[in-house]
Amino acid sequence: MIVCLFSACGVGWGEGRYKATWQSLDTRPLPTWYDEAKVGIFLHWGVFSVPSFGSEWFWQHWKGGKKGNKYEAFMKKNYPPNFTYQDFGPQFTAEFYDGKEWARLFNASGARYVVLTTKHHEGYTLWPSAHSFGWNSLDVGPNRDLLGELAYSLRSLVPHIHLGVYHSLYEWYNPLYLKDKANLFLSNDFVTQKTLPELYELVNLYRPDVIWSDGDWEALDKYWKATDFLAWLFNDSPVNQTVVVNDRWGAGIPCHHGSFYTCQDNYNPGVAQPHKWENCLPVDAHSWGYRREAKLADLHSIHELLTQLAMTISCGGNILINVGPRHDGTIAPVMEERLRQMGSWLDINGEAIYGSKPWKHQNDTLTPAVWYTSKGDTVYAIVLHWPKESVLSLASVKITPQTHISMLGYTATSHSLHVQDPELKEGVNVIFPSMADISSQWAWVLAMKDVQPGPNAPVPLATMSKPNPDTPQARP
Amino acid sequence: MIVCLFSACGVGWGEGRYKATWQSLDTRPLPTWYDEAKVGIFLHWGVFSVPSFGSEWFWQHWKGGKKGNKYEAFMKKNYPPNFTYQDFGPQFTAEFYDGKEWARLFNASGARYVVLTTKHHEGYTLWPSAHSFGWNSLDVGPNRDLLGELAYSLRSLVPHIHLGVYHSLYEWYNPLYLKDKANLFLSNDFVTQKTLPELYELVNLYRPDVIWSDGDWEALDKYWKATDFLAWLFNDSPVNQTVVVNDRWGAGIPCHHGSFYTCQDNYNPGVAQPHKWENCLPVDAHSWGYRREAKLADLHSIHELLTQLAMTISCGGNILINVGPRHDGTIAPVMEERLRQMGSWLDINGEAIYGSKPWKHQNDTLTPAVWYTSKGDTVYAIVLHWPKESVLSLASVKITPQTHISMLGYTATSHSLHVQDPELKEGVNVIFPSMADISSQWAWVLAMKDVQPGPNAPVPLATMSKPNPDTPQARP
Amino acid sequence: MIVCLFSACGVGWGEGRYKATWQSLDTRPLPTWYDEAKVGIFLHWGVFSVPSFGSEWFWQHWKGGKKGNKYEAFMKKNYPPNFTYQDFGPQFTAEFYDGKEWARLFNASGARYVVLTTKHHEGYTLWPSAHSFGWNSLDVGPNRDLLGELAYSLRSLVPHIHLGVYHSLYEWYNPLYLKDKANLFLSNDFVTQKTLPELYELVNLYRPDVIWSDGDWEALDKYWKATDFLAWLFNDSPVNQTVVVNDRWGAGIPCHHGSFYTCQDNYNPGVAQPHKWENCLPVDAHSWGYRREAKLADLHSIHELLTQLAMTISCGGNILINVGPRHDGTIAPVMEERLRQMGSWLDINGEAIYGSKPWKHQNDTLTPAVWYTSKGDTVYAIVLHWPKESVLSLASVKITPQTHISMLGYTATSHSLHVQDPELKEGVNVIFPSMADISSQWAWVLAMKDVQPGPNAPVPLATMSKPNPDTPQARP
Amino acid sequence: MIVCLFSACGVGWGEGRYKATWQSLDTRPLPTWYDEAKVGIFLHWGVFSVPSFGSEWFWQHWKGGKKGNKYEAFMKKNYPPNFTYQDFGPQFTAEFYDGKEWARLFNASGARYVVLTTKHHEGYTLWPSAHSFGWNSLDVGPNRDLLGELAYSLRSLVPHIHLGVYHSLYEWYNPLYLKDKANLFLSNDFVTQKTLPELYELVNLYRPDVIWSDGDWEALDKYWKATDFLAWLFNDSPVNQTVVVNDRWGAGIPCHHGSFYTCQDNYNPGVAQPHKWENCLPVDAHSWGYRREAKLADLHSIHELLTQLAMTISCGGNILINVGPRHDGTIAPVMEERLRQMGSWLDINGEAIYGSKPWKHQNDTLTPAVWYTSKGDTVYAIVLHWPKESVLSLASVKITPQTHISMLGYTATSHSLHVQDPELKEGVNVIFPSMADISSQWAWVLAMKDVQPGPNAPVPLATMSKPNPDTPQARP
Repeated sequence: MIVCLFSACGVGWGEGRYKATWQSLDTRPLPTWYDEAKVGIFLHWGVFSVPSFGSEWFWQHWKGGKKGNKYEAFMKKNYPPNFTYQDFGPQFTAEFYDGKEWARLFNASGARYVVLTTKHHEGYTLWPSAHSFGWNSLDVGPNRDLLGELAYSLRSLVPHIHLGVYHSLYEWYNPLYLKDKANLFLSNDFVTQKTLPELYELVNLYRPDVIWSDGDWEALDKYWKATDFLAWLFNDSPVNQTVVVNDRWGAGIPCHHGSFYTCQDNYNPGVAQPHKWENCLPVDAHSWGYRREAKLADLHSIHELLTQLAMTISCGGNILINVGPRHDGTIAPVMEERLRQMGSWLDINGEAIYGSKPWKHQNDTLTPAVWYTSKGDTVYAIVLHWPKESVLSLASVKITPQTHISMLGYTATSHSLHVQDPELKEGVNVIFPSMADISSQWAWVLAMKDVQPGPNAPVPLATMSKPNPDTPQARP
Repeated sequence: MIVCLFSACGVGWGEGRYKATWQSLDTRPLPTWYDEAKVGIFLHWGVFSVPSFGSEWFWQHWKGGKKGNKYEAFMKKNYPPNFTYQDFGPQFTAEFYDGKEWARLFNASGARYVVLTTKHHEGYTLWPSAHSFGWNSLDVGPNRDLLGELAYSLRSLVPHIHLGVYHSLYEWYNPLYLKDKANLFLSNDFVTQKTLPELYELVNLYRPDVIWSDGDWEALDKYWKATDFLAWLFNDSPVNQTVVVNDRWGAGIPCHHGSFYTCQDNYNPGVAQPHKWENCLPVDAHSWGYRREAKLADLHSIHELLTQLAMTISCGGNILINVGPRHDGTIAPVMEERLRQMGSWLDINGEAIYGSKPWKHQNDTLTPAVWYTSKGDTVYAIVLHWPKESVLSLASVKITPQTHISMLGYTATSHSLHVQDPELKEGVNVIFPSMADISSQWAWVLAMKDVQPGPNAPVPLATMSKPNPDTPQARP
Repeated sequence: MIVCLFSACGVGWGEGRYKATWQSLDTRPLPTWYDEAKVGIFLHWGVFSVPSFGSEWFWQHWKGGKKGNKYEAFMKKNYPPNFTYQDFGPQFTAEFYDGKEWARLFNASGARYVVLTTKHHEGYTLWPSAHSFGWNSLDVGPNRDLLGELAYSLRSLVPHIHLGVYHSLYEWYNPLYLKDKANLFLSNDFVTQKTLPELYELVNLYRPDVIWSDGDWEALDKYWKATDFLAWLFNDSPVNQTVVVNDRWGAGIPCHHGSFYTCQDNYNPGVAQPHKWENCLPVDAHSWGYRREAKLADLHSIHELLTQLAMTISCGGNILINVGPRHDGTIAPVMEERLRQMGSWLDINGEAIYGSKPWKHQNDTLTPAVWYTSKGDTVYAIVLHWPKESVLSLASVKITPQTHISMLGYTATSHSLHVQDPELKEGVNVIFPSMADISSQWAWVLAMKDVQPGPNAPVPLATMSKPNPDTPQARP
Repeated sequence: MIVCLFSACGVGWGEGRYKATWQSLDTRPLPTWYDEAKVGIFLHWGVFSVPSFGSEWFWQHWKGGKKGNKYEAFMKKNYPPNFTYQDFGPQFTAEFYDGKEWARLFNASGARYVVLTTKHHEGYTLWPSAHSFGWNSLDVGPNRDLLGELAYSLRSLVPHIHLGVYHSLYEWYNPLYLKDKANLFLSNDFVTQKTLPELYELVNLYRPDVIWSDGDWEALDKYWKATDFLAWLFNDSPVNQTVVVNDRWGAGIPCHHGSFYTCQDNYNPGVAQPHKWENCLPVDAHSWGYRREAKLADLHSIHELLTQLAMTISCGGNILINVGPRHDGTIAPVMEERLRQMGSWLDINGEAIYGSKPWKHQNDTLTPAVWYTSKGDTVYAIVLHWPKESVLSLASVKITPQTHISMLGYTATSHSLHVQDPELKEGVNVIFPSMADISSQWAWVLAMKDVQPGPNAPVPLATMSKPNPDTPQARP
């Protein structure tokens, strides 16, 4: 009998251990908490929150953009000529940052996990990394461990909310990276001295349940030593039982490997997917980071967010709603409003979301903007628009004698809300109650017990087969 | 015949001229535009927008508050010990300020006048005053004439919107004022060298249609030479035909003299008033100036604002909704949202507001939260809550055979919406249409032609006879 | 008998009082302390010490200079485009300023009075003036009374050193002044609201013994109400017995009226003058204020300063050596060095300076760079260059049998140092001792008892009849 | 025959190559330029030049000092509580830095090499190091390659001046270093990822002729891989023919290995040394970096500097005079003055310094403060004090009939200045000329041809056998 005495012997060894290959790593079952959580909060915060102009890609757009780009103009107008991006560091003050307040807000939003940009492409780390001397939140700016405070706040106040860490593999202007790149990625000093040590540090110190990798696309997973890291993570790390990872681990990997797929930003396929996926979506359609110049029209309304949420959950995804905190640690009231609106909706309708599974149909074949989920013997219809004359016709649902339909948050009666419509052969009509008596303000959920799936639509709705054109195109 | 050849000979002279007494000044008719405008925007902007913490009274609360107050703590935490309030000046940058953008937003809000704090109690002027060297927006900070840009933008883009100037008579820390005060206001260097020259300058350079005076309370109108100034304003100034002034011109004057009364901040008497009045109301219930730490819960919802608006217009007032721009010249999206929500409501329901007059009844005696206005032979009922079972019962309205009731923004039918309810002897029942067919999201206006006033309620509704307890208590 | 009961009745009234006319004011005798003091320190300190570039005229040269001037280039290179001069205010921090340390240094320099720029043409006051709200050292920047601390330090530590205040009548960019100027000085709001109140405040609060007026040249003394102020100063002010004033009180006044004449900056006529005068001289030949970019070559050496001092005292003037403190309150070591070098020289040779009178001759007619002063029966020769072969020939001195010549600081012998030279008919030869035995490092003073003046030189030395070309041309 | 095909095989291999052992490295002859150069300039410049308070050890004294130390007090008084050391970075602006101007000044000082702190213990690099992302002069602060500009300026303008680089092996707060230290230096990530890559980069990019290592003392040379680096440097680097290194390469190494010994700061043994050594000496006795609060009394006078120079050269050392530039790139005029004074002295007396060798005697046994050097058949006596009665007696010099003694810079006569003193049996008396005729201001050099050494002093002068107590104790 072969016994592995040391944890170090682990990778690719013994029964039940994962090898550092995608083939092996892909066999790991998805930890159940993630699929059940459905809703997360994404936070883009960093030194880019200081200029808070244009996008969190400020540095790259400024220095890498065309001559005369708007970032250049912004700098020219507001700063001395020699001002550098890294000179912004000390102005990242976070004086109002209170992890506990954030934790309470995220809880109120109904989110079940929170993913913080612990290091974006700028390279600045929101924790005091031993591998980012002078370019982390303890050394420059807040003089605090921003990640640590969030982790502690979540765990002490709202332990059901999981902590996730966004981490960029590459850094636009790190000279070690640029050298490896110039070497066509044949050297890998950056990975061995920076990326990997940081990832191990993050996991060992903060024990995140999500690792949301990014910045992978310029090199192959081999350069990033992705499978080595993941094998350690799944076998031997302190979070090996609970952690999930996304799919951005090297060119060609997204949408092919990982606990869940993000494919591209704002990914929302509109049809059910064979593999767990996630739709990450910024409230500000033009930026993941806070922009001071954002206008109301740039922000998704709560209706748009709930539409995305309904589509995403119906099709088997999770949704990760992004807000960008400000350099001073506040979250803008309009962002708070969106989060609390979502939370108030989930308070009433969360039964249709958390722990739900996709149903046979994702959306109704007759009435647009009606999306289905299911749990046990109940099917939920999420109705995004109040029906004309207050009567909703559904074609994808077949009733049975036992069918009972209620509206979540409406308790005035225990009778089923449906009536049989002689003209609607295989569907059902549902009578909506008076506005004054219902709880939900924006989208209404019908809980339907003992119903059967109706026939497939003759053709899938065209608009569902591609990402919603409304969704933002900015990249995190 | 005595002819006055020179404008300077004016005050108290000749036929049709006002004397520098309240008795005479009070005889001036209110320029009609003001009563018809109904809705204005109040803007609190200044150096206090730099710390943007606590309130626009930052300086006074910090230096004049109790030992260990929160402003002191804020300064201690975030600034070097010797940092002064006036050291904030250069950080008032206004880099994103665009008067045209503001003008368009105010227009979208439905406002018909805009009142800017051209000088708050801190003494900093938002125009390059000849009497505030080194403490104005050209000399320190933006290096621009902020007032001038707003005036120009309004007049060129939205000329139907009137410009108003808030102006504080006193200045907390101006040594000239403090000396006069120490002299028990027997000297008046501050008034002759600072206050009055500024007021003349403001009027002559910017020709405002509203002068919104403040900071009057520590001294009598005589000290401020208020009636002298007003006599010039009403007789000889370039805006003598159009200008209106509020009532804050010295201790004892508010609620007694002026074109319109503001009495106290957030004044909202809840009953019709014999003299034109104004309800100034900040969206942020705790501050007129921008506060970075404001939470969503601190802000009035659109429902609350529309409630205030309905009450105010019904009782003969104007409403002046306040927002605090940020030090960089942006208006926070959540504030923009409130303004645009109000604007979208007024787009549908403005007919009941602009140019309206109070009706016989202000609010319904049976159903709470229904407020009346009138115009010609039409009576408008502003209904703040969707009625139970979609049927609204009104007791203060008597129908006639010719009565026709419609809902603004609902065009699906031309039939009157009322039904006669046998149980409701002297009132009327109105059937509300389906949610899907109406335009307004928050409050609904019934236009009722050919109706009669019902009997008075036995007792006025208690909640209506005093200012709404929800309204903020901050002072501008 | 006419009795003046009220101090206010004073000006031009009663016996021994000065009228507000130059004719009367000019009759006031010069307080003796001033003529005896001989050496003062001039301090140019203000907001210009923040950019500390070019000159204390930074603001005017920047904004009033030619397009593309070096100040404009400096701002463009180092500051955002909208940065204003007054935005520099908060950076005037004075964190190292210690009035006591300055007092000790000025004492060590041998100075007997100190003149501080309490307000330069920029208008910023170094005391908390009631007439310069937001533009004084308590409100913006140091948050301290800089003048008060200096006054207190001098009086408590070195009471024999007199306090003087430099005060600019005009202010480049004060809008009140600019208005009066635009009115061709027919209005005088600036003088009545700003200049005069400040001057009264300065005198009453700080009791200076020198008022060093400046910035007078654009208007007549009548506009400045100079004689009114001076009549009060000489009659009724708390310093009426001790105060002296310079001559810059309006166009045409300099070199004609005042306790002492400054005529123009760096005035050094090289011949004896009928009226008390002062030579103000900056150590940095190019600037009165501190310049960070100053090079050693720009600074006067101690030899040059002692040359100026010798010439000035010989010709009946006082010398006012200027240094520019830094924005942080330090005095650059090189400036300290010059002051201490002067002090060490005066420690040895002060007998020839303090309380001295011009002699019959000012400089020797034979040997250049020898200057005379006198006190009682002693004539002093200040010898600026060590003589060739250590023998000095003087033609302007006739010896007598009682003549005794010694060198200040040389005590090795009590014999007279002179020898009779048969070739030098009417003069005297003086043998200089060995370098190792004398105290003074740079200029040597012979004390000559019982000598007579020699004949006049045939023609005055050309170089002496005009200001030394080495002296700087900057204007304070 | 063994052929080494690859450069990598080099170290310790083949004829004429050095092994990575001290035994081997110590056999390398000292490149001649260094011994002949004699005088260098040391420059301490870095982020510590921003607070420019106390010393260049600001960070360590502040954070590592006792509670309530003066650095803590300084920060408390002048900065917000959370301000970090690295937050100072953007204020290191260097706006006046001009390498060409520096080069001209260093040339005028008579220096033959210049050593810049390219990285002090703070870790900030004055060149854009690929191993100091975000903490170098291109990324934060000046946005320039400060070292590169100096190197270019020296080489293009004054190519006879050699470039040297000070480089600190350790960094106080680099987490990689702290980890290695915590591991008792059994790990060496810091050395392999930071120290060595930086050193190679420095040499390859800037080709310095001096590597002035420091910060070595906490670990052994083995940890630093010092001999490996030096073997490469001496064998294969682009400067292998010209480079010299000091002795700070690990605990126990100073004073034992290296091209020249520095032993400790301000090392000045006072007696001739068997191995080449260097006396590094700051003009500011209390700090190597610029201190704003420095007083004149803290600075060495030119007399003190020349005393040190004379002692040092006489005893076989080189002298490295240190000045600390300011954060804005200027060198304070008082520092410039010292350098130019030294330069003017060397212009006259450099013949006794450059290329000289120690003589048989180092200092005179009779007259203190007389130091000897030699070149060919000439012996130079550097006389620090002007002799009493202008006659200098030397006991360590025996004259011969051919003896000729002149004074450098004195050309009035070609006669020898010596006279035979019957009372001075074995020495010589030298008559000093008149002050007016000599060039040097502070110390005078006698060039003595054809003299013999006198007898040894019975006992060495006590004061010479240990470091001069006047020399500063600060550590670079």
